[in-house]
Amino acid sequence: MCSLRSQSSLTVHSTDPYNAEPAPERLVSSFLTPQKDLYVRSHGPVPMLDAGHHRLTVDGLVATPLDLSMVEIRRRFPVRSVTSVLQCAGNRRGDLRQVRPVSGDPWSAGAVGNAVWTGAALADVLHAAGVAADANPSMHIVFTACDTCETDHERYRYAASIPIGKALSPEVLLAYAINGEDLAAEHGFPLRVVVPGYAGVRSVKWVTGITVQLEPSDARPQARDYKLFPPHVTKETADWDAGMTINEMPVNAAICQPSAGARLQPGPTLLRGYATVSGRAVVRVDVSADGGRSWHQGMLKCDQAAPWGWTLWEATTDLPPGEHDLVVRAWDSAGQTQPSSPDDTWNFKGYLNNAWHRIRVTAG
Amino acid sequence: MCSLRSQSSLTVHSTDPYNAEPAPERLVSSFLTPQKDLYVRSHGPVPMLDAGHHRLTVDGLVATPLDLSMVEIRRRFPVRSVTSVLQCAGNRRGDLRQVRPVSGDPWSAGAVGNAVWTGAALADVLHAAGVAADANPSMHIVFTACDTCETDHERYRYAASIPIGKALSPEVLLAYAINGEDLAAEHGFPLRVVVPGYAGVRSVKWVTGITVQLEPSDARPQARDYKLFPPHVTKETADWDAGMTINEMPVNAAICQPSAGARLQPGPTLLRGYATVSGRAVVRVDVSADGGRSWHQGMLKCDQAAPWGWTLWEATTDLPPGEHDLVVRAWDSAGQTQPSSPDDTWNFKGYLNNAWHRIRVTAG
Repeated sequence: MCSLRSQSSLTVHSTDPYNAEPAPERLVSSFLTPQKDLYVRSHGPVPMLDAGHHRLTVDGLVATPLDLSMVEIRRRFPVRSVTSVLQCAGNRRGDLRQVRPVSGDPWSAGAVGNAVWTGAALADVLHAAGVAADANPSMHIVFTACDTCETDHERYRYAASIPIGKALSPEVLLAYAINGEDLAAEHGFPLRVVVPGYAGVRSVKWVTGITVQLEPSDARPQARDYKLFPPHVTKETADWDAGMTINEMPVNAAICQPSAGARLQPGPTLLRGYATVSGRAVVRVDVSADGGRSWHQGMLKCDQAAPWGWTLWEATTDLPPGEHDLVVRAWDSAGQTQPSSPDDTWNFKGYLNNAWHRIRVTAG
Repeated sequence: MCSLRSQSSLTVHSTDPYNAEPAPERLVSSFLTPQKDLYVRSHGPVPMLDAGHHRLTVDGLVATPLDLSMVEIRRRFPVRSVTSVLQCAGNRRGDLRQVRPVSGDPWSAGAVGNAVWTGAALADVLHAAGVAADANPSMHIVFTACDTCETDHERYRYAASIPIGKALSPEVLLAYAINGEDLAAEHGFPLRVVVPGYAGVRSVKWVTGITVQLEPSDARPQARDYKLFPPHVTKETADWDAGMTINEMPVNAAICQPSAGARLQPGPTLLRGYATVSGRAVVRVDVSADGGRSWHQGMLKCDQAAPWGWTLWEATTDLPPGEHDLVVRAWDSAGQTQPSSPDDTWNFKGYLNNAWHRIRVTAG
């Protein structure tokens, strides 16, 4: 059994379901985010599971269905570790509210973290079930969880799916540890999926079933949520089949230090933050102290051996007395940068906001 | 022997070297760009080569150096075809001049095309030379061409390189045909490299040498050109080692029809264009007839079996009498869209401009 940790350092958006994020400055204190500082996104009550009784079944279009205990998962499959970002599709949603209202929790820039995840490679488990490396590339792998969620008077079991091509990639784990310690209950104890490069919605916590099938999951998180729509679409007009399924995420960056609204000593000021992108490298971070009229470059800190990890950055800028609009934007290895304004990223669900991150501070 | 084709339909930016692009509306007349409508980017005089005497050598860190005739290349290696975009890193550079001057030809939106390329897989040739699939991943593959170029009073042989991981990917070809016909002289006859997903600079024409080595090419196109710099860097201050080597390219889109400045009949108006991105899919194209204040979606035409090809789009919009700012922006499968303004993409070399494409037309 595992109990819910004290999360007193997190800003709580809701208690039921439990959704909370760290203050952004917590994120830049270390390259690896301690579990206690990792945002929590739940869709239902956090299940309190017993590792001794937890099972993982693998079924559907497999040659050899599996029914595994946690001990079997740990013993039967090689132990793999991957340093990876975990980021909510709604990270930085709060900044979209200055354009028009959006649904969902108003996440600041803290719905993201970077950790070493350890467990079995999903590919190893799928191969043990007889899924071949050259399997039908249109198949999907559905992850079913233990939590029961409730939205709009509908009760459902949390589930989501990923394409088999991604599922067979070596970085995708069935993780039982984070940063060398057991998962906390709210982070998926005793077993969760970690899909590096994909939005957190696919990294299903408390996973108990894996099903190989020909189509994506029809569960709400896959079929009627976590899709990107054009700006004119509303909750009432959304055609869920037409929305873009959110898997990979765009290049993004945030200023974590100083914090928005801070009153600072005039003079040289250290700015720190993170930058992320899916499947590419962050190659440059530009910082502005004048709202985006002029820029200089931040120093980057990443781990070349951790291509799924994030990039931390820092820059020093001179702030004379007065108000200042501090801005950051990142560039990825395809020469892609971020849109300047949340007007350009607004969507009614408030997903994937990667407009330049702006904070106002006062010096003096 | 092969002679230079009549390119009377192209807009010529310079004759020596020969640089020319089609009118944008030519690009949307077919999914595959006819060779005669494909932009030409040269760095020196177009060499007139004899296929009967052309040789390709493969040397450097290889177990078995090769020296191949064109007949041997065609007979010894399986024939592979790939539908792929070829795009200049300077495509749409012209739009950056409204911000500040840039160096290089003022390409409009025509320095791009989409064709079926046929030849030998580079991986097959490298394997024949004894390069293993698990070769040192930091190695580079240098392509040396037959053309002698001259810039800033420096004469050099054209060469460029790509990382071995990309070189061993099955889509990279040593191509001797385009759309089922021989390459024209200005497109690389008798043999050129085609690196799908990478800027055209790496798709070396008239290739005669392949060298496997531990570092990128030190030739000018690799070492002192085709790099992306921040907006404050100038020709005088550029540290070429610090610039980002341009390989993959960001999501981009252009309106090809109507043409900029067109005078149209008021009423329903058909807009057509293309969208491109490296290593991802184009999932949505937004079109605006009011400068970007409101948007509607274009219909997309792509080939699911051609992941390296482009996406054509069309949309109909109602234009009342008057002047109109038509705008397009695309979104890729990571939810990434384009910056709104060329202020946000400007760099002194004028590369990778993927700001929203805007044209002004008059109805009535």
